[in-house]
Amino acid sequence: MNGNSSQNNESSVSTLSNYTHPSETSIDKANTNDQESGKDISVGKYGVLKMIQSSKNVLYNTEFVRVKNIKTNLADKSVWIRGRLHTSYARGKQCFMIVRQQQWSIQVLAVVSDTISKQFVKFCSNITKESVVDIKGKVARTPSKIGSCSQKDVELYIEELWVVSQSADQLPLLLEDAYRPVNGDDKDADIRANLDTKLDNRAIDLRTPANQAIFRLEAVVCKFFREILTAKGFVEIFPPRIKNAVTGNGTNVFKISYFKGSAYLAQCPTFHNIIAIAGDFERVFTIGPVFRPEDSNSHRHLTEFTNLNLEMTFKHHYHEVVDVIASLFTSIFKGLRENYQSEIKTICEQYSVEPFKFLDPPLKLEFPMAVNMLRENGVEMGDEDDLSIPNEKLLGRLVKAKYDTDFYILDKFPLAIRSFETMPDPDSKVGSNSYDMFMRGEEVLTGGQRIHDYHYLMKRAKHCQVDIEKFAYYLDAFRYGCPPLAGGGIGLERVVMLYLGLDNIRIASMFPRDSKRLTP
Amino acid sequence: MNGNSSQNNESSVSTLSNYTHPSETSIDKANTNDQESGKDISVGKYGVLKMIQSSKNVLYNTEFVRVKNIKTNLADKSVWIRGRLHTSYARGKQCFMIVRQQQWSIQVLAVVSDTISKQFVKFCSNITKESVVDIKGKVARTPSKIGSCSQKDVELYIEELWVVSQSADQLPLLLEDAYRPVNGDDKDADIRANLDTKLDNRAIDLRTPANQAIFRLEAVVCKFFREILTAKGFVEIFPPRIKNAVTGNGTNVFKISYFKGSAYLAQCPTFHNIIAIAGDFERVFTIGPVFRPEDSNSHRHLTEFTNLNLEMTFKHHYHEVVDVIASLFTSIFKGLRENYQSEIKTICEQYSVEPFKFLDPPLKLEFPMAVNMLRENGVEMGDEDDLSIPNEKLLGRLVKAKYDTDFYILDKFPLAIRSFETMPDPDSKVGSNSYDMFMRGEEVLTGGQRIHDYHYLMKRAKHCQVDIEKFAYYLDAFRYGCPPLAGGGIGLERVVMLYLGLDNIRIASMFPRDSKRLTP
Repeated sequence: MNGNSSQNNESSVSTLSNYTHPSETSIDKANTNDQESGKDISVGKYGVLKMIQSSKNVLYNTEFVRVKNIKTNLADKSVWIRGRLHTSYARGKQCFMIVRQQQWSIQVLAVVSDTISKQFVKFCSNITKESVVDIKGKVARTPSKIGSCSQKDVELYIEELWVVSQSADQLPLLLEDAYRPVNGDDKDADIRANLDTKLDNRAIDLRTPANQAIFRLEAVVCKFFREILTAKGFVEIFPPRIKNAVTGNGTNVFKISYFKGSAYLAQCPTFHNIIAIAGDFERVFTIGPVFRPEDSNSHRHLTEFTNLNLEMTFKHHYHEVVDVIASLFTSIFKGLRENYQSEIKTICEQYSVEPFKFLDPPLKLEFPMAVNMLRENGVEMGDEDDLSIPNEKLLGRLVKAKYDTDFYILDKFPLAIRSFETMPDPDSKVGSNSYDMFMRGEEVLTGGQRIHDYHYLMKRAKHCQVDIEKFAYYLDAFRYGCPPLAGGGIGLERVVMLYLGLDNIRIASMFPRDSKRLTP
Repeated sequence: MNGNSSQNNESSVSTLSNYTHPSETSIDKANTNDQESGKDISVGKYGVLKMIQSSKNVLYNTEFVRVKNIKTNLADKSVWIRGRLHTSYARGKQCFMIVRQQQWSIQVLAVVSDTISKQFVKFCSNITKESVVDIKGKVARTPSKIGSCSQKDVELYIEELWVVSQSADQLPLLLEDAYRPVNGDDKDADIRANLDTKLDNRAIDLRTPANQAIFRLEAVVCKFFREILTAKGFVEIFPPRIKNAVTGNGTNVFKISYFKGSAYLAQCPTFHNIIAIAGDFERVFTIGPVFRPEDSNSHRHLTEFTNLNLEMTFKHHYHEVVDVIASLFTSIFKGLRENYQSEIKTICEQYSVEPFKFLDPPLKLEFPMAVNMLRENGVEMGDEDDLSIPNEKLLGRLVKAKYDTDFYILDKFPLAIRSFETMPDPDSKVGSNSYDMFMRGEEVLTGGQRIHDYHYLMKRAKHCQVDIEKFAYYLDAFRYGCPPLAGGGIGLERVVMLYLGLDNIRIASMFPRDSKRLTP
């Protein structure tokens, strides 16, 4: 988050005057009475803390600093940090530790001395990796830059160490394997953790720098979406995910037991957003989960994903809406490029990819032009055929080669392959006023002008064999006047995956769901 | 939205120089050839537009102004508006119309004259209520203030009128009935629309000023939640709503058919947010739907509602988290009071309520104190009993009488009535480090310190007879170190309902779901 939006409950260093760690009342004494090497001069300076249970009888007033804020200006001052033991190794009378706090890390040294006992140093070297520790240490400039830490110019000389939460001995996933570069040397391939192992152990895997960055960027894409649209007068609404009916043949939807009957999970919130427009909200958006029983191992399908949906009235032509969406994407891409280079760089260290290219304003093609481009490259397809996934990708490559953009809009999809509420193109026999948008050759948005005329909508619904009774809740919304409107739905995880050039959507979903995965 | 955040695609008035309505190409001529009164001098100035279908052959370049921006400084200028025909009545050679645009409205006069034909005026008087119309009119100062419109000092003298979308003749819900004051005269009780009629016809009902305001405020509460937490370093995450297992006996959860097996809908996202904390995100929040099969006609339960959930690490005491949540609520209350009085006033015109009172910082009571207050008022209950809904409300009244606040925090709930992950209070035999927060005597947040120690959590899980295998995804997250943490979940619709003092949560849910309602 640009390194400065995090305002945790550590105070600034200037107020760090009075460290009192609750050692007297809460140490597990058994851990500090290692007598094998004689009297322990460090008693009361290290050990395993009793579980922090918020007792009123424990006086806790230690103040902590953030690792990222420990710089040379703090040299010779003592500070407390709470972080994870990332690695440690003992050599003679010394123990070198790296303590990690999210994507930041610092080296900590425990050296036997007048004030630090052998027992203390041994205790340090025996702490399990990934344990949460409180450390008091004196800040020192390093003789040379430390390559393996984010804080390269400073290290800590230990004064106290308390284990807050112990990790188990054996980690099912080593952090260094979890973030080993995917496109790195082949020699790493056999020790690099595979995706399922990482997902199975997500509580560990999320701690990698790349994951810390990916899910911050996901939040940021969502934040841009919301802020840009709110500034344009859109209102966020919260339409239901439980529905009485869905379009299609029933195989493309999850069914719920609903009291004595049944119901369905929303594949998208579009219809309710449209009803809100018929209800005069003029511009609405929705952020939330949608559900589709994709029974596949596709790299780009999940059974649950986050849908960013928007719907708005227009005055004369649905391209007014396309322009709003186009500028939304451009603003998001610019916002990421201009403000989140540090996160993008971190992610690229694990998943090396090409930077995302886009035009401003974006390229807009019409479907028949795309068909022609594909035909010129040997693809056989009819005028009313949908794009297959391979053809979609091929088209993306052709567009990239010709226009040098990873983002484009494809307008005027054939009516035959769009849903019944789509407005036909009055200037074409087979087209419709509908569009998809693509990133790196994969679809990230589907949308269109929605039919707002009740009688015409009924005609189209009957033509498309829609169950009029089940969809009365939608169709009836148009009986009492509705302005012209258009909109679309964006897959959040796809946008993140494709902006970053990741090769699997599960990497961009914190807890992905597919036909085989229901945990964690 | 403060009246100025809406930036629709109407341009400012200064650019309105060149009105060209697409009448030549798109009028339904049949509607303008009313010959009964002789030659029509207004031909080409009114009629029913062809369905706006975004044809490239129709030259649309009319520019519109917002009704709310039509003020006396525009006197004698001609403007175009698109709005709904709210009411019309004809008297002799005149037709008085009110045209509505969301919560704004203006009077429009059609008067037979040298340029306005009888046929045109008759056409105006025959347009069905709620139709969407484009009107060109000359702005005039009114001789006296118009009570029934938001624009009280100006009216429009009609020049052109085109029907964009016709409403059906018979409305199942009259707008004036939909927004008749609920606490008004008893004489209105029989013509006031009941809640089910309103919900069944939500596309009409949403057009009332109160509903336009309620759902804008709902978006605003959500916006405050998000902005306040983001500024404090929280990251928004998108945990799954499909789960492999849920706590409880299975009657409190919706079951889904999931490929060849089954799964469940999330009652809350807490466990996944906690896993994100174990994964070092430190501070996370989530906004999204949760699902509970509440089979009741309760005024405050829905089967699907929007949950605002947050989880964060703390250093020493879970009250660090309680303080963050307390200040979150106070900031939201202040934000509403200071910036949204116009919306609140509009809502109060339909649902008259007392202003919401709160203390800063909020009042915090402990559960045993609440039990004592209730006992002093004749309630019999045990130390480990939960609050019944009537007792919860009584407590709210007692707290209001004693402390003059509609918001308070109740800390230290009995361990026996909280879920297994709740940290027991080390200073009490029956208490726990958990809390609820209340608005007008009803619970809006439940939260607590979560056990972060793996071994202790396993002990508590076994004690509470949790299915260890099904919850392995959660329990295992604590094996590899986890800092102390606490959090809570807020019901968005409840916050809106109770802040405004509405008497039914369905009023604060755009498309409510309960055991009997699956549409619209």
